[in-house]
Order: sequence, then structure tokens, then C-alpha cells
Amino acid sequence: MPVAAIIGGGVIGGGWAARFLLNGWDVRVFDPDPEAERKLGEVLANARRSLPGLYERALPAEGRLSFHSDLAEAVDGATWVQESVPERLDIKHRVYADLQEVCSEEAVIGSSTSGFKPSELQEGAARPKQIVVTHPFNPVYLLPLVEVVPSVVSDDAFVERAFEILRSVGMHPLRVRQEIDAHIADRFLEAVWREALWLVKDGVATTGEIDDAIRYGFGLRWAQMGLFETYRIAGGEAGMKHFIAQFGPALAWPWTKLMDVPELTDELIDMIASQSDEQSGAHSIRELERIRDENLVSMMRALKARRWGAGKLIADHEASFPETEQGEGLSETVRRTVPLDWVDYNGHMNEARYLQAFGDATDRFMEMIGCDAAYIAAGGSYFTAETHIRHLGEVNIGSEIRILTQVLEGAGKKMHLFHSMYVGDEVVATGEHMMIHVSLETRRASPPSDAIAETLEGYATAHAKLLRPEGAGRAVGVR
Amino acid sequence: MPVAAIIGGGVIGGGWAARFLLNGWDVRVFDPDPEAERKLGEVLANARRSLPGLYERALPAEGRLSFHSDLAEAVDGATWVQESVPERLDIKHRVYADLQEVCSEEAVIGSSTSGFKPSELQEGAARPKQIVVTHPFNPVYLLPLVEVVPSVVSDDAFVERAFEILRSVGMHPLRVRQEIDAHIADRFLEAVWREALWLVKDGVATTGEIDDAIRYGFGLRWAQMGLFETYRIAGGEAGMKHFIAQFGPALAWPWTKLMDVPELTDELIDMIASQSDEQSGAHSIRELERIRDENLVSMMRALKARRWGAGKLIADHEASFPETEQGEGLSETVRRTVPLDWVDYNGHMNEARYLQAFGDATDRFMEMIGCDAAYIAAGGSYFTAETHIRHLGEVNIGSEIRILTQVLEGAGKKMHLFHSMYVGDEVVATGEHMMIHVSLETRRASPPSDAIAETLEGYATAHAKLLRPEGAGRAVGVR
Repeated sequence: MPVAAIIGGGVIGGGWAARFLLNGWDVRVFDPDPEAERKLGEVLANARRSLPGLYERALPAEGRLSFHSDLAEAVDGATWVQESVPERLDIKHRVYADLQEVCSEEAVIGSSTSGFKPSELQEGAARPKQIVVTHPFNPVYLLPLVEVVPSVVSDDAFVERAFEILRSVGMHPLRVRQEIDAHIADRFLEAVWREALWLVKDGVATTGEIDDAIRYGFGLRWAQMGLFETYRIAGGEAGMKHFIAQFGPALAWPWTKLMDVPELTDELIDMIASQSDEQSGAHSIRELERIRDENLVSMMRALKARRWGAGKLIADHEASFPETEQGEGLSETVRRTVPLDWVDYNGHMNEARYLQAFGDATDRFMEMIGCDAAYIAAGGSYFTAETHIRHLGEVNIGSEIRILTQVLEGAGKKMHLFHSMYVGDEVVATGEHMMIHVSLETRRASPPSDAIAETLEGYATAHAKLLRPEGAGRAVGVR
Repeated sequence: MPVAAIIGGGVIGGGWAARFLLNGWDVRVFDPDPEAERKLGEVLANARRSLPGLYERALPAEGRLSFHSDLAEAVDGATWVQESVPERLDIKHRVYADLQEVCSEEAVIGSSTSGFKPSELQEGAARPKQIVVTHPFNPVYLLPLVEVVPSVVSDDAFVERAFEILRSVGMHPLRVRQEIDAHIADRFLEAVWREALWLVKDGVATTGEIDDAIRYGFGLRWAQMGLFETYRIAGGEAGMKHFIAQFGPALAWPWTKLMDVPELTDELIDMIASQSDEQSGAHSIRELERIRDENLVSMMRALKARRWGAGKLIADHEASFPETEQGEGLSETVRRTVPLDWVDYNGHMNEARYLQAFGDATDRFMEMIGCDAAYIAAGGSYFTAETHIRHLGEVNIGSEIRILTQVLEGAGKKMHLFHSMYVGDEVVATGEHMMIHVSLETRRASPPSDAIAETLEGYATAHAKLLRPEGAGRAVGVR
């Protein structure tokens, strides 16, 4: 297993630790805070309940997590060293000096700094080229963005290696073309934050009203398209130039406070804190974290189904997971974690999600017999004619489920499948499905390709030698 | 039907027209552009494919849409007049003068202006109090935010009436406490836009990279929580004050260009336009509109399932729809539009969504017999033991489906239901379900309350007199 060393294990460092760990890395944490293990445990618990379920396939097995009071021990063999110590240049310089005495020269030393430029971080370092800004966004285990900022001394092969590692843990490294204070995203956050403080101070809006102005409007646009693509659409068929001609002049209007920075008096801080209490005080911070993660998982999974934006990144990452090795007997067609958005009011997996999982199993089996995306694009597919589901046990959110698939009949236009869903060794549900091969042009039954017919028949013959599953051929309410 | 008059039918006016029309209002459009009807038709087509499916229940029947070249005719009987003409004060003043000669004194005249203050709009008007800023966000038919800005002369009862009307069409009116240039949201958009132009001009990032920096990071946060609630969490258990203490000092750092406004030279405009082409040029503007709407619908429905943010607004709006009147015979338990996010790779409604719709029908029937949220919170519920689904016809996205529910057996712990799903008069699928009453504490079978048992038995007895449905009691593959 590759090893990541986490220097500073707060909310950000803990998020990095979780990101690496759940993607199969061994993680070693160095943090002098006696509370570090407890705090990191809280972040990790949030990550474990939210990240694995983002994917339709199981993540690799978790790596090993350990805490170290000796820096040399923490970085021994590490290919990635992530520094997330307080935002003070003198502290960071001291950390790099210590680090470079003990860590591998090949390791990437990434800094989570939101404000400092890499050239500032590199000042006085033994090996300046080894240090690069890798600025993530909270919660680090869910949000894919990492701003990667090299300096002029950084070399491209090194940066490319950092990119590969970040991609391999499901992140989106964005190379910032020039170093600049606060990189990219935090420049926007800073501009909005300053303007928001003015609006609160001047009594134009409360903190809750400002949040509503964001989340009921442009926040939804930005979660999927960002600024320029949104404005390109606003320009209509005439596009971007037309939009700038329309909206451009407003730049010179006094719509923002621009240069003025509101003074953070005690009075203003109290006003914000009390408005924020009124807005969000019904939930503890821990509850808000979980609500946030549930919202993010639900929205990111919604985008994943559409293969767009952050959802497309998740799908691409998932495609890099190794294939399940098929053993003897039945085919394993699903192995996944039940995601947060599959819960229902009874507190367990919603019934429609059983059929979604069985549908995924059918899709996977279709791929295995050659009915894949290319075949479907060429006009052939299977439609479900009939389904029978039995619920034999409860399935909870966060459980790992596995589905084994048996072909009961596979001849002509028919494909009769029997899926068994397991949690551990227990069968928690079965799904029996009659599929009919169709032409997507006529929308009517049609024979599959010869290749598919042959492969399917092979499975049917092999599976016929196995026990016919208990529960096949049943009707509702009949034993 | 109430009547809305739409003055100016471009992208924004068209969005307003769609919002009112699909919520059952008659809409009259006044726009001298000879292309107005075609352009508004495009917006309306987008709205029809995206808005109705946001809800788990059918919207009221669409109102009537008409185009008028006579202003008096357009506003006759209108209780809402929405002005979305170009952003020039002289034009707006002329429109108000004409409007106030012919429209009802009771009507709300709302302006879609993003920049002007209401007192500026009201200058020289015959009835200044009648004019208020109601600033929406594109796409108006999906995004719920409307900034409502009254001036000092506006009266509260009038503003409250405007609020009620906006809520009745599913929007979130946000009262801006003081009039200010650009209201609230556009001050943020302006600040970010200015900063983004600098980043492009200085070669720090391309338009595509900036959009990635937004949509893979804080855009996802803001779509559901906004700025302050997000930062409250970042402060950890110590909350908002701690966050300000940490992040506050950065305000004074030179992280933004602040006062400087980049000059929109032809060179800069060309650079942005060509970067935008590279980023988004693979899709036409019309395609991007549809992609945007599909993304928004998917994310908003994801939030709806979580009853949070924009999703909670949708759920609350839906709760205001009138109940379906139950006729003789079977109970209508679902009547809804198939939403955009229920599509699968075969181009029709995904099989798992049939079970979701049948599950909703079961939930509605449970409510009808008294097994509602309060009963469930008190520890009783029904779990599904077994399901049998037959697919008899295809269902497309955007179709209206209805489900009629028959009780086959309802005694003791058992509830045996048979749902028939219709598109028009055609049965497209049936769902047969065996439900078992359980204690949510022991997670085991238990008898329902006497009241539920009695009501359920009443339905069972009544439904037993009806024809037993064709297809009940079938096993997969057996005729």
C-alpha cells in the first residue's frame, strides 16, 4: 500500500487522511495536539458514512491509520506528505525544514495553505522544488477540487506525478497557471465574504437571508456549471460576446463596496454570531456537518447519474476501480456500499433502491454477455417485462451489499435472471426478472446478436448445474 | 383563473410566463418584438419538460397563454404585472406611465430589474406605491429566489400580498430590508465577475478552469447551505465567532483586486469568448439550457428528498396543491409527471422508478388508512415483504402517470395491495405488494392499531366487490 503522511490533523488534515485512507492508502498522522486522534476520528466517521456510497462499486479496502509522535516515523516510506498546519509562514518554514531532513526526496510535500504562494513556502527550504501548494476544500473527503500551484522552480514531471496521485484518490487537481495570493477560489470567497459583511453591517440582510439569496438562486447554478458557462447561456444564441456587451457596463457601476473593508468590531462580530445562531442554532455543528454531507452526497449522486460536473469525476474515478474477480459458480454483479440517499422514513434502504441495485446487477450481467453501451447504441437492448422481489432481511445505509446472479433461462429473446442480495453471508433479498431482448428502433421484441445468444446460453448451461434458487417462480403471498 | 400580464417576453419575461402558466394562471404577454412568441415558446418548452416533474404530485392544469399588441387588453383583469424590459430607467418609466393608465390599481407591478432601486423606478409614477422590485433568477421557472425590494413609500399589506402570490407559484420571496443598488445576490455576482475577469486577463486561469474551481468546490457547498452556514461549520464546535477570528484578518490582505475594474478591451472580450468556446462550444446554447435544467432538476429533487434548502421549498409548495378528489371505486394514490431524473439508458422510465412510484402509492394509501407520519413516529409502520411488477407498456419522461390502488387482503398484520399504473387509459404497469405491519422498535411483525385495522378492513371489503385484477397472484414467467 502507498503511504501518506498527514502533518496536522485538524478538519482539513483529517479530511485528507480520510480521503487517502478510504482510497486504500496507509495513513500516518503527525500532530502534537493530544486531542488529535479524537478529532480526526470525528472527521473519519463522517467520511466513512458518506464517501463510499458515492460510488456504484466498492472502494478498495481501507488502508491502515496510525498516529505518530516521531516525525521520521510518520514520513517513513511516504510518497505523499500533506501539510495542514496553521496559516503562519514561520510555522510552515519550520515544518518543512524538519520534514526535509527525514522524508524521501521523491515524496510530494503538498501544503493546504489557502493564502500563501508556493514561492513563499519554498523560501529557505533545502529542496524548494519538493514543495507545492495543494489547496483542498472542506469537506476534503467529498469535494473533489484541489488547487495545485507550482512555482517557477517546480518541475513539470513532479507536478504531473502529484496530479496522478490526486486523481487516484478521486480528486480534481486544478493547476493554477501563475502563483497569486489566495490562488483562485478563495479570491472569489474573499470578495463575497467582504460584500456579505457589509450587507449585514448595513442592515440590508441577515446572515440567513444572505444564505437564502445564494442557495435558492445562483448557488444551484454554480454547483453544476460555474460562472462562465452559466453566463454563456444567459447570452442566448448570441453567446458570450453578447452577454458581456449586456452585462459588462455594470462593472463600472457602484454595485459593490469595492475597496472598503468593513472593520470587524466586536459589535459586528456579535451581530453576525447572533444572526447565525438564529439561522442555524437549532442544529449542533456535528448535526450540520452530517446534514451538509447528506446534501452533498445526494446532489453529487444526482449529477453522477447525469455524468456531469462533480458527478462525472466520481463516475470516472469509479471506472478506475479494479474489476471484481469472478470465482467459481455464480457471477458477482454488484458489490457496493448503500449510499446516504437511499434511506427512507423507516430508517432503512428504500424498497425502490432494491430494484435499483437489482437493475444495476442486470446491467452488469448484460455487459458480461456483450450487451454493453456500444451494443445498445447500435440499437439492441433488454427491457424488463416482469419482476419479483422478496425482502428477507433489513438493509441499512452504509452496509456493503453483494449481488450474485443466476441465469434461470437464456434462450431466444428471453433472459430469466435470479439475483440474490447479500449482506455478509445473509441473503437479505432476492430479485427474479424476466427480460426480453428488443430493438430500440421498433421498441418490439427481437432476437439478440448471435454473440450475445451464445454467451448467454453458456451461462444458462453452466448455471443450470447449480441449485435452482429457493424462492424462484413464487407469486406474491404464495409459499 | 388569476391573470398575470408579462410586459417584455425575453428569457426572463418568458421564465415568469412559464412559472405562472404552469401553476395554473392565465398569462397575457405584451412584447412588440415580432419574434416574441417564438422565443417565449422555447422558454416554455424548457419549463414544461423540467418544472412539473419537480413535484411528486400533479401541478394544477395549465392556464391559457395569449399574446397581445394592445397593452390595455394585456393587463385587463391582471392581478400581477411583471415588467422585464431592458435595463434603462427612461424606458422603464415610460412603461410604468403607460401601464398605470390601463391596469388595475390593485395589481402588483413587479420589476425584474437587477440593478435599479425601487425609489428610482417609482420616480414620476402616478401611483408609486404600486411598483416594487421583484428580481428573479434565470431560469425563472426553476430557481425559486425572487428578491422583493419595496421602497420607503411601499405599504406592508401590498408587499405581503405580493409575497403570497409569489409563494403560490412556488417561489421564495426574499424581502430586502433596505433598497440598495443591485439588491443582494447581484452584488456577489458582480464581485465574483470582476475578480474572474482579472484572473482571465492576467492569465492565471481560463474560463473553464474558473468554472471548475467553482463547481468542484464551493459551488456545491453554496447550492445547499450558502455562505454563513458553511462557515459556521468550518468554525467547528466553537462556531461562528471562532471562524471570524480565524478568517477575519484575511479581509485586509490583498487577496482581491478590490477597487480596480478591468477594462473590457476587445482583446479581453475575444480572449473570454474563445476560451468559452473551447470550454462549452461542443454544445449549442439550446443544449446547454437543457443540460442545465436537467442538472438543476436532479439536484433540486435530491434536496427535496432531504427536505432541505430549495428542495424543502418544493415540498412545501407541493403540500399546497389541492387533494385529488376520490371518485367511486379504487383510490387514486398517485398522479404525477415523470421527472427528468427518472430516465435510463433505454430512453424511458427506469425500472426502479416504477417501484418508486408504486412505493409512493403505498405510502399514500397508508396515509389514507391512518398510517401517517405521526403514527410512524410513534413506532408503527408497514414494511414490504414481497413485490411483483409487470411492465405492459413503456413510460416516457414527461408523461403523466396515475396509479389506482386495490386492497386484495387487509387483515391482521397483512396488507396485500395491487396498484395499476395508467398513462391516459392504458395500464402500463402493475405492482402487487405484500406489506407486513411492524413495530419499528423490535423490527418485527406486530398488529396495527385498531383504527388502522378497521379502516383497512373497510377498504378491503369495499374493494372485494370490484373485479379481482387481471395479473394478480402471478409468478415471473408464468401465464
